[in-house]
Amino acid sequence: MNPVKAPLDTVDRIMLAHGGGGELTGQLIQQHLLSQLNNERLAPLTDGAVLPWRAGELVFTTDSYVVTPLEFPGGDIGRIAVAGTVNDLSVMGATPVALSLGLIIEEGLPVDVLDRIVASIAATAREANVEIVTGDTKVIERRSGDGLFVNTAGVGCLPPTVHVGLEHVEPCDVVLVNGCIADHGLTIMSVRHGIEFDSDLRSDAAPLNGLIEQLLTGGVRVKFIRDATRGGLAGVLADISEHRQLSIEIIEAQIPVSPTARHAAEMLGLDPLTVANEGKIVCVVAQDHATSALEAMRRHPLGRKAAVIGRVTDTQPPLVELNTRAGGRRIVQRPYGEELPRIC
Amino acid sequence: MNPVKAPLDTVDRIMLAHGGGGELTGQLIQQHLLSQLNNERLAPLTDGAVLPWRAGELVFTTDSYVVTPLEFPGGDIGRIAVAGTVNDLSVMGATPVALSLGLIIEEGLPVDVLDRIVASIAATAREANVEIVTGDTKVIERRSGDGLFVNTAGVGCLPPTVHVGLEHVEPCDVVLVNGCIADHGLTIMSVRHGIEFDSDLRSDAAPLNGLIEQLLTGGVRVKFIRDATRGGLAGVLADISEHRQLSIEIIEAQIPVSPTARHAAEMLGLDPLTVANEGKIVCVVAQDHATSALEAMRRHPLGRKAAVIGRVTDTQPPLVELNTRAGGRRIVQRPYGEELPRIC
Repeated sequence: MNPVKAPLDTVDRIMLAHGGGGELTGQLIQQHLLSQLNNERLAPLTDGAVLPWRAGELVFTTDSYVVTPLEFPGGDIGRIAVAGTVNDLSVMGATPVALSLGLIIEEGLPVDVLDRIVASIAATAREANVEIVTGDTKVIERRSGDGLFVNTAGVGCLPPTVHVGLEHVEPCDVVLVNGCIADHGLTIMSVRHGIEFDSDLRSDAAPLNGLIEQLLTGGVRVKFIRDATRGGLAGVLADISEHRQLSIEIIEAQIPVSPTARHAAEMLGLDPLTVANEGKIVCVVAQDHATSALEAMRRHPLGRKAAVIGRVTDTQPPLVELNTRAGGRRIVQRPYGEELPRIC
Repeated sequence: MNPVKAPLDTVDRIMLAHGGGGELTGQLIQQHLLSQLNNERLAPLTDGAVLPWRAGELVFTTDSYVVTPLEFPGGDIGRIAVAGTVNDLSVMGATPVALSLGLIIEEGLPVDVLDRIVASIAATAREANVEIVTGDTKVIERRSGDGLFVNTAGVGCLPPTVHVGLEHVEPCDVVLVNGCIADHGLTIMSVRHGIEFDSDLRSDAAPLNGLIEQLLTGGVRVKFIRDATRGGLAGVLADISEHRQLSIEIIEAQIPVSPTARHAAEMLGLDPLTVANEGKIVCVVAQDHATSALEAMRRHPLGRKAAVIGRVTDTQPPLVELNTRAGGRRIVQRPYGEELPRIC
């Protein structure tokens, strides 16, 4: 790229012209993206990044993010985009290696918002120890004037010793989560409704590769892991039950939900079990590994409040059943449609 | 996933609820995506796809597509998304292996439009001999009611024998293109303006991995390849000139432009050199390889009209200069901003 001719700093909002693939696109990329994300693979701005690779299995994943608002307590669209793709690789048992970043920016987006989000992308990538190695930027016409859609894809290395997957789940296995559920979705919905709860209600968005690596290398026989994002805890448990044609029994009193989240869920009329998380995994282990799994999780800062929440059974028909605090039982269903639009 | 309960076929437009991560999202994915894209890696719908990989170098790339209209003569957003990412891998010298697919669908998109575009994605992937191995679907609120944004990322294998890159370009090298330029951008602009030209004005969108493989394995010492998308031929030539601090002299009479495209460009007031292509590469080879490169290109159906269009010189200052048909000379500049918004 040429030395910059007309600094983007002289404009305070993104213009359609920034997406045209010309001089202005180059300035946007140099001044607002590379300045924060710079690394030796991204810097050449070629059509793709070249990565050395060992023989073995590669895991490849992608997610688009359309969350609104773009920034919220505990995170922003950039943090969940990086964390989400890192987590998708990690729950497959892979070590995240590199991410791509596709930005679709709405004309009118304030440049300082973009800068904060790119800074958050860079910071979250450092936290997860991955690099953004390739990317793309497009600009679309003004709509609300504050829109940004983010796509991240990721590649990771699957160690030959790791074997996690739904097919390993059996009756008597134990189900764990790494901490309090529902914080992300409830934070977003609270901000949208302009409801102020205690200041401790924050999105849990976080890259969990460190926690998962600790679990997988700590001698625990982990059978299955999945991050409980859209569809919440209920969605993941429904997946396990349906795929394996087994039942799952969970104990309400053992499911970590913060008092603030519980209060927010009541106010908003939402079931914490179906609310999205961005930093929570559901983990299935053999019964005799439950204690060591719990201890491995709790040793990590993102697993301090980990808990055993239930177990897999062969009760038929296959259902997810909740033993309530009140001593009752209710069937937990996968949410049907869009209970919480644009939550991630 | 469970057997389908309420067929999506009973609705004819996408609803926000299709993006919620619940039952309806599952139906959308099963009935409208997997039905056409099905392959053994995508089918398990896990968080990512597992691919066997040989040791060596991996190329990783991404692009988002925001083209409007979604369908146009010669292609649609799905075709350019697959072709674009295949081409980005190929111009790096890599053999495309697998793609990811991220869809952001606007509420209100007719289901039959989605079906046609997914069919086009599947067909273009087959044409390029790659698989869509992982994906993600989100739904955003209604805007114009016919919106769809597509992100594709791709991974490819770099053969150890291939060494293409800007750093190899030297004075006296020869510049080629594989056929008529400007068709894609002019088609889109004509449709948008409701201008009817001859029916032979069609987007050139096509996966070029076959052509490029033929070139790279045909004994030609290829120094640099890039697809001339946003920014057109002028953008690629500016990149070469700026990065290498060399000049490029091109001959207008040798640059293939169809009579229809020339007419359309005149009517629309556009310079074919800066108009986007979706199936054209710029290729730089050593002078004594020019003929064999041209022959290798012309042997492929997507290179029948390939031409040598100019050469690299050490004239200073570094500029891209056009020798016009009229016998004059003019400097070719990288387009500054958004001449053609949402062209890809």
